[in-house]
This record gives sequence, C-alpha cells and structure tokens, in this order.
Amino acid sequence: MEGDLQRTVGRNLRAYRLGRGLSQEAFAVLVGVHRTYMGGLERGERNLTLRSLERMAELIAVDPLDLMRASE
Amino acid sequence: MEGDLQRTVGRNLRAYRLGRGLSQEAFAVLVGVHRTYMGGLERGERNLTLRSLERMAELIAVDPLDLMRASE
Repeated sequence: MEGDLQRTVGRNLRAYRLGRGLSQEAFAVLVGVHRTYMGGLERGERNLTLRSLERMAELIAVDPLDLMRASE
Repeated sequence: MEGDLQRTVGRNLRAYRLGRGLSQEAFAVLVGVHRTYMGGLERGERNLTLRSLERMAELIAVDPLDLMRASE
C-alpha cells in the first residue's frame, strides 16, 4: 500500500533509536536531520528519497534495505 | 555508497523491462512516467522517493524491496 515503505522506515528508525536509549533529539543529531523532521520520519510522514535513506543508514551503520523491511 | 540504491533500482527496472521485451517507451507508459524520465531511471540518475518507487513496483506487481536488491 502506498506509504507502507515510509511507515516501515519510521518504525524501524524508532526501534533502532529506542534500542540505543537515545532521545529523538540525540538521534536527529546522529543522522543529521532536524529534531522536528525526525519526529515526522518516525511517524512515517516523510516521503524520503533513496539517497536520504541511504545516507541515514550509513550514518548508523545499517543496511538501508533493513530499514525498509517490515518486522513480523 | 551514496547512489547505490538508485543505481540498483535502475538496473532492476531495466532487467525487468528487457525480460518482458518492452521498449523504454512502452515501459514508461506502464509505470506511469515520461519516456525520458524512464531513461534516467534506468541509468540510476533519478533520486526516487519511497512513494514513487512503491507506486511503480505496484504497477508492475513486484515487491519494492526486490527492486532495491542488488543481484549477485
């Protein structure tokens, strides 16, 4: 369904962040986005480009495909 | 590396199209983009958004993640 990918990315970023005990603010700094943008990302409201996704994945050293994979 | 994802998507779209014996023009009509945009996509020059990728994948009935998977 349209928007599924960005919602999955949002959930995965959030899970990653919480798994490391980071605030949205600290995580935003880590992946190089603004704190308010981070909130939108986690809520799946941001229609990311492949390059932005790739860049963020690289900064947190995860496979970009893993960020798009829905967990069961 | 930055741009890897879009290049992989380009290669996969091209492989899909050739596998079906379609011209770039016919394929562009199928996935709802302009013929010249299709060329740029296949060359990996287009920084697609997750939603555009999702929409194209849906139109050709493939998993969007498969379009981003590099073949060995």
